[in-house]
Amino acid sequence: MTIVEKILAAHAGKQSVTSGEFINVKVDLVMASDLTAHISINQLQALGIRKLFDPSKIVFVMDHFTPNKDVAAAMEIKKMREFARELGVNFIEAGDIGIEHVYLPEKGLVLPGEVVVGGDSHTCTYGALGAFSTGMGSTDIAVAMATGEIWMKVPPTIKYMFNGKTGKWVTGKDLILYTIGQIGVDGALYSAMEFTGEAIRDMSMDGRFTMANMAIEAGAKTGIFEVDEKTLAYAQERANRPFTVCKNDDSDEYAQVIEYNAEEIEPQVALPHSPSNVVPVEKAGDIEVDQVVIGSCTNGRLEDLYYAHLVMQGRKVSKNVRCIVIPGSQKVYLDALRAGYIETFVMAGALVSPPTCGPCVGGHMGILAAGERCASTTNRNFQGRMGDPRSEIYLVNPAVAAASAITGKITNPKEVMGNA
Amino acid sequence: MTIVEKILAAHAGKQSVTSGEFINVKVDLVMASDLTAHISINQLQALGIRKLFDPSKIVFVMDHFTPNKDVAAAMEIKKMREFARELGVNFIEAGDIGIEHVYLPEKGLVLPGEVVVGGDSHTCTYGALGAFSTGMGSTDIAVAMATGEIWMKVPPTIKYMFNGKTGKWVTGKDLILYTIGQIGVDGALYSAMEFTGEAIRDMSMDGRFTMANMAIEAGAKTGIFEVDEKTLAYAQERANRPFTVCKNDDSDEYAQVIEYNAEEIEPQVALPHSPSNVVPVEKAGDIEVDQVVIGSCTNGRLEDLYYAHLVMQGRKVSKNVRCIVIPGSQKVYLDALRAGYIETFVMAGALVSPPTCGPCVGGHMGILAAGERCASTTNRNFQGRMGDPRSEIYLVNPAVAAASAITGKITNPKEVMGNA
Repeated sequence: MTIVEKILAAHAGKQSVTSGEFINVKVDLVMASDLTAHISINQLQALGIRKLFDPSKIVFVMDHFTPNKDVAAAMEIKKMREFARELGVNFIEAGDIGIEHVYLPEKGLVLPGEVVVGGDSHTCTYGALGAFSTGMGSTDIAVAMATGEIWMKVPPTIKYMFNGKTGKWVTGKDLILYTIGQIGVDGALYSAMEFTGEAIRDMSMDGRFTMANMAIEAGAKTGIFEVDEKTLAYAQERANRPFTVCKNDDSDEYAQVIEYNAEEIEPQVALPHSPSNVVPVEKAGDIEVDQVVIGSCTNGRLEDLYYAHLVMQGRKVSKNVRCIVIPGSQKVYLDALRAGYIETFVMAGALVSPPTCGPCVGGHMGILAAGERCASTTNRNFQGRMGDPRSEIYLVNPAVAAASAITGKITNPKEVMGNA
Repeated sequence: MTIVEKILAAHAGKQSVTSGEFINVKVDLVMASDLTAHISINQLQALGIRKLFDPSKIVFVMDHFTPNKDVAAAMEIKKMREFARELGVNFIEAGDIGIEHVYLPEKGLVLPGEVVVGGDSHTCTYGALGAFSTGMGSTDIAVAMATGEIWMKVPPTIKYMFNGKTGKWVTGKDLILYTIGQIGVDGALYSAMEFTGEAIRDMSMDGRFTMANMAIEAGAKTGIFEVDEKTLAYAQERANRPFTVCKNDDSDEYAQVIEYNAEEIEPQVALPHSPSNVVPVEKAGDIEVDQVVIGSCTNGRLEDLYYAHLVMQGRKVSKNVRCIVIPGSQKVYLDALRAGYIETFVMAGALVSPPTCGPCVGGHMGILAAGERCASTTNRNFQGRMGDPRSEIYLVNPAVAAASAITGKITNPKEVMGNA
């Protein structure tokens, strides 16, 4: 069996499962955000369900429209808060908070071998930890909250092997954008994308979270990584319970094996309006930008801010650009502050936001007007996602975003940095 | 003549003016924000006016709904940006930005003896510098932008003398709240409030900005302070042009002189829904809060954050409170970061926002739901100003706000700090 099959079999109480099989799976954690939890709550209330399978295994993270954007958001969040308090659900809102997909791994709420479902499509992020995680509709999430189980079809696993070493300024974001560019937004439809190879072994946990996060942009059910010493170090630092490491049998149960030469992959950019509309930054042409966003569940971690810091240190954001840096959690914010990155950003003339999904899904904190362009480290550049339908989003890694903030147009970091 | 009369006479080209006289006044600076500039632009465009008296003396500060809250804000701001670029108006949006009434003095855009008009009622803030400044409607601002002059009646001056020294945790915010509590929201209607006395002489510039800022809450045309060595030091550090210090003649031209004993004034709180509904914090009773806001044009300066830092250092925000700290400018943010205050706030579990008016006028970044209460360092607690009409705002100084964030209810800092 593949990693995913082993995790699912263990959670279905079966010796083995095979791709295509329908199973019931016990979940270790159910997550919802302020964008979706209220929909699940409405479903539960409509069904008259007032008892949840295990409130300690349910977590609501308020991250999309917080700090409260408007009265509508405030009222929805109040409703979720009251529901959570009444039923004992974990409610993450103030204090030591973060964007859900940054916060959950960081706090040890997801560990290797676990199954997590979330009312958010980027729940697949936790595959970086060797967990099976996937986004589901809010009705499914309501059922999971009530029963602790989900019904699903075992996805086939496709192995993506990145041979060789990545070059300077090439990150997990570039490998996943490149992959989506190659296979398209339905290239891994309902599959598990397993990422492996030398470039992956060399990659930090933060880079792996970025890659797993965007598996959904190729239509995948989830992304998954083998647990190695980096994963174990990350998990052991945070674990307050035992966890299981599931390994591949190295059998031939992959639906497909795709190999890329990581050494040939340069910093990438996804042009409007699809994450698969990918070209190397060098071939993007002369694209002026009005705004740069560095953050999100995709690229709001410490290493992401480190890359942005490297490029922005001692430089100034172009006067034509609004540059917004959004650390993915209070922990990331604090770590970045202590490392001097926050000072770099403010000195450069960037704005630093508290943790929020912010502009990514058009929430707040940097919405685009008609005709405006944004270089963004987020995960989707669908038409109108960050504001007016006549605006444009260019998906890039944090170093490219920072370089673009400095020059005012989509820029390869090496243009700003030379060989530094 | 009083200070205000001397400034106005000089700008009206007259030897002297007297209270009640109608005059034309040349202005040194015209300011508008994203809340108002577009209204003035509409007026100018309706009148077919395409030439402004001196674009270098006009400044638009984008601070209420920035970083862009939504598409509507993005589109309005785009319109203002294009107008400003076309006509050469100073446009403050990204980079080294701030809330207008923090930013203008900080950048030396206002100096002693000058006349500044703004499309924002709290333009009276600059009286702390010994300048005459006042808020006007956006049609008047349009006229000022076109002609460089305004038409006005010379206001009478009322002298408020604060004798003695203020006690611990008593700030400019408490003196002005106390004053408004004594005289009411129309207690200084169309007057200039001149603040003087030992407690004022001892007060920092930041404290004076807070007091001048809230003169409008007593209905005043402006607040004004004598220029002393603190004012001079502040202005000289920033001035790129000569300025004039106007002093009182010490004649009997005050409409009224009101004396208070500063030693008897404790930390104050303005209860809902009026800035004049003021009681000492000790007498506020047991008021739980859901949110705390520390920032704004009233209390978003470095000294304000210092007080909040003192109270929050080594402590944790109550789990029932969302605490939002909003430095008033990028300079304040950077200074606070270097002084360790930002680290204090994040460690305590507060969120730190980029500079914005944010929740003060119900814009974004902390909007209240029905039934929620906020302890806020802002300047107005009108019904519904920060969100739902069924929410409540309690106006306090930054130390009281910080103490309230720690305990979860309106709290005198000495309860948290003891005699420290």
